[in-house]
Amino acid sequence: MADEFDVIVIGAGPAGENVLDRAVRGGLTAAIVEDRLAGGECSYWACVPSKALLRPIDLAGEVRRVPGLDLGPIDVDAVLARRDEAIGNYDDTGQVRWIEGVPAEFVRGRGRLDGPKRVRVTLDDGGERVLTARQAVVLATGSTPVVPPVPGMAEAAPWTSHEVTAAKEIPERLAVLGGGVVACEMAQAMHGLGARQTTVLVRGGGLLGKMEPFAGEMLAESFAEAGIEVRTHTQAVRVERPEPGGKVTLHLPDGPPLEADELLVATGRRAATRGLGLGTVGLPDDAPVEVDDSMRATAVSEGWLYAVGDVNGRVLLTHMGKYQARVCGDVIAARARGDELPAMRDLAGGYGAPQVVFTDPQICAVGRTEEAARKAGFRVRAVDYDMGAVTGAYLLGDGYRGRARAVVDEDRKVLLGVTFAGPGAAELLHAATIAVTAEVPLDRLWHAVPSFPTVSEVWLRLLETYGL
Amino acid sequence: MADEFDVIVIGAGPAGENVLDRAVRGGLTAAIVEDRLAGGECSYWACVPSKALLRPIDLAGEVRRVPGLDLGPIDVDAVLARRDEAIGNYDDTGQVRWIEGVPAEFVRGRGRLDGPKRVRVTLDDGGERVLTARQAVVLATGSTPVVPPVPGMAEAAPWTSHEVTAAKEIPERLAVLGGGVVACEMAQAMHGLGARQTTVLVRGGGLLGKMEPFAGEMLAESFAEAGIEVRTHTQAVRVERPEPGGKVTLHLPDGPPLEADELLVATGRRAATRGLGLGTVGLPDDAPVEVDDSMRATAVSEGWLYAVGDVNGRVLLTHMGKYQARVCGDVIAARARGDELPAMRDLAGGYGAPQVVFTDPQICAVGRTEEAARKAGFRVRAVDYDMGAVTGAYLLGDGYRGRARAVVDEDRKVLLGVTFAGPGAAELLHAATIAVTAEVPLDRLWHAVPSFPTVSEVWLRLLETYGL
Repeated sequence: MADEFDVIVIGAGPAGENVLDRAVRGGLTAAIVEDRLAGGECSYWACVPSKALLRPIDLAGEVRRVPGLDLGPIDVDAVLARRDEAIGNYDDTGQVRWIEGVPAEFVRGRGRLDGPKRVRVTLDDGGERVLTARQAVVLATGSTPVVPPVPGMAEAAPWTSHEVTAAKEIPERLAVLGGGVVACEMAQAMHGLGARQTTVLVRGGGLLGKMEPFAGEMLAESFAEAGIEVRTHTQAVRVERPEPGGKVTLHLPDGPPLEADELLVATGRRAATRGLGLGTVGLPDDAPVEVDDSMRATAVSEGWLYAVGDVNGRVLLTHMGKYQARVCGDVIAARARGDELPAMRDLAGGYGAPQVVFTDPQICAVGRTEEAARKAGFRVRAVDYDMGAVTGAYLLGDGYRGRARAVVDEDRKVLLGVTFAGPGAAELLHAATIAVTAEVPLDRLWHAVPSFPTVSEVWLRLLETYGL
Repeated sequence: MADEFDVIVIGAGPAGENVLDRAVRGGLTAAIVEDRLAGGECSYWACVPSKALLRPIDLAGEVRRVPGLDLGPIDVDAVLARRDEAIGNYDDTGQVRWIEGVPAEFVRGRGRLDGPKRVRVTLDDGGERVLTARQAVVLATGSTPVVPPVPGMAEAAPWTSHEVTAAKEIPERLAVLGGGVVACEMAQAMHGLGARQTTVLVRGGGLLGKMEPFAGEMLAESFAEAGIEVRTHTQAVRVERPEPGGKVTLHLPDGPPLEADELLVATGRRAATRGLGLGTVGLPDDAPVEVDDSMRATAVSEGWLYAVGDVNGRVLLTHMGKYQARVCGDVIAARARGDELPAMRDLAGGYGAPQVVFTDPQICAVGRTEEAARKAGFRVRAVDYDMGAVTGAYLLGDGYRGRARAVVDEDRKVLLGVTFAGPGAAELLHAATIAVTAEVPLDRLWHAVPSFPTVSEVWLRLLETYGL
């Protein structure tokens, strides 16, 4: 039967595509359903365009720190043009071709569950198609930005990550709600590309609240120097935008209202489960789909439903969604052969997912923060080091500022978490990800000699500071 | 007695200083003898100035790949001024203060062995001082460039690493002898800073002959694009320089002679043992001092002589010298207490030292090359990946080219070596250094998820290509 497959994936973002790839490699047939662009949020409206916007700003920052280099103003049109190139001008032909080459069937339309192992697809032409899965259905629909229920907010049609990464021009005055990764990255991108007044409103006490406190503090300092205003312990209580696309007024709990030309709301995301037919298989309709470490939905009998990426609510990061997808695709294929493949489980998530914030300074972390490790009951010692004191960092430029923290499990003498904040720190992270995930003992890390003069020499300094 | 110490170190470069630091922390008294600048070759005439010269060129290369950024010509005077700042204008006051704060005694003068446990120092004022060691003497005199015995070469007084890193102006036409790290880095630095004709003469078949072949090939391609000429299978057979500092003529085995305004000889280094009094303790006078994994000279009875860094000939890299020095200082302190401290041995050297070449592309490697691993008898599989195909690399700029190779021990399923070649690759290396040194199994590395969109995602691609 043409509409029966071993595996049906709903959502052709990076996670969905990876499930497909691994399952088909494992010998199964598969179809993938997507109503927007194959390639997903990440490729068109998130990681990829945001980094394309940030890269020139980041590099301009590096250049400013190096005497002898003289940079002209950033050509914003050229930056936006490269962003458009990076997102393939919203054309997913290449992605669809990739899917067909897996090989798998690409079904363009809106898919939803319709009872066990059944997916009903509303096609683009209004028609319907019903697909049946022999082995598994995998949900990979991602997440959508949450717009908080503030009076006037929805009517103001604010930007979310979706719109800001697609910006065709840079607003003169930008108000940003939120202090997390999207808010910080996009405040910096828009400001660096020409916004004259950028104001970040944070409900909590600082930026990047889930990371080590010094990370948000360093970023706030950098924002202040760049002229980006950060206001903490505040929020919008009412929003006015009389004309669509016109001036926005944010009323705050105290003080005068804030006027801006655009408003970016980056206060969180929710699993994209609405209209996904979860009710037809006995799941709550508006909550992440809970899964076990094999990505199998825990509340569905007979174990045919899986969920990977943002939609399972575990951790909202592209690379973790892809990782879960690799686990999931392999496990489905294995189970189809009657094998449980116990080594293939989500191990990384338990350690604490690696994450990079592409601001200046770049901030990256893996594992647990000091506070999180203590709360989890570990006997912890945290060691900090001033990355600017590393010769390799000095050689990158004048006034390099950075900081590193290693969180050590004092009982097992392994790293529970590592955070780096500094220009160009993004590529430092994977060393930490290996050390944390593989639980490499400190006295073995000691023999991994960082090359001189790289910034990675901070590893030596951290271990020396610890007392090795 | 004022001239008796537990430990006497000859040579106050990074290696010597680290021995001092660790030995004193271990409860011993120490003196360190240096006839040039405290801080050593690396700080004034090697790694530090060379990277200060290369950084703006490297960054200019990155900028050229990013649309929207417009860089003016490099201000060479500003670059040279920052180089001078980086080397502290050849003032070692800060280093001497650091030594005194260890605390240890700094003795300015030329030290040489004068029989067991005795060091005779010719002081700067012509006087002499004899120091006696209760526990150990440590040689840390480094290495010196070798000028090959080509007729007319010595008389031509060519540049070595020492002079090129100290350049006050950039020669119009530069000839470079050698294809190793110093030759490649300095050819690029001088060319990037304005040399109009840069010609690299390599005796062998290519650049960076000790690394994976693709590394030198990629660099040669980059050189060709930049207008740096590389001639392989050639060498100078006679050199003429009638006027000191004037035009140099290199006669080659065939073809017309090569004219240049300056000649850089970078054909190797030799352990700095001459005049070190090795004969007074029964060692050959002009060879590296052979040591065991605790850095103790193997051919000296009673085990009081140690050698760290270039002078022992193990591996001529600053960070490895420092590593050896940490081993050595700790071991000397432990042995003074009657402890052998078996965990503190040179373990890293056996895996293959990590190394970074700060050219564009940056090239870095740790462990064994594929060929070296096969020769050593391992059952090997090498996996390559085109780094330009990683999204994170594309986002760094147009036309990013790079390549990665992982050399897998097929019996133990661990990495024997990793090489990265690509813009900004230097900081990718430490992840590999940890993986190789800690022998992290591939199926554990698989759970170390690289963050999207970083260049480090090449780790995922390598493992996928391997078949995981």
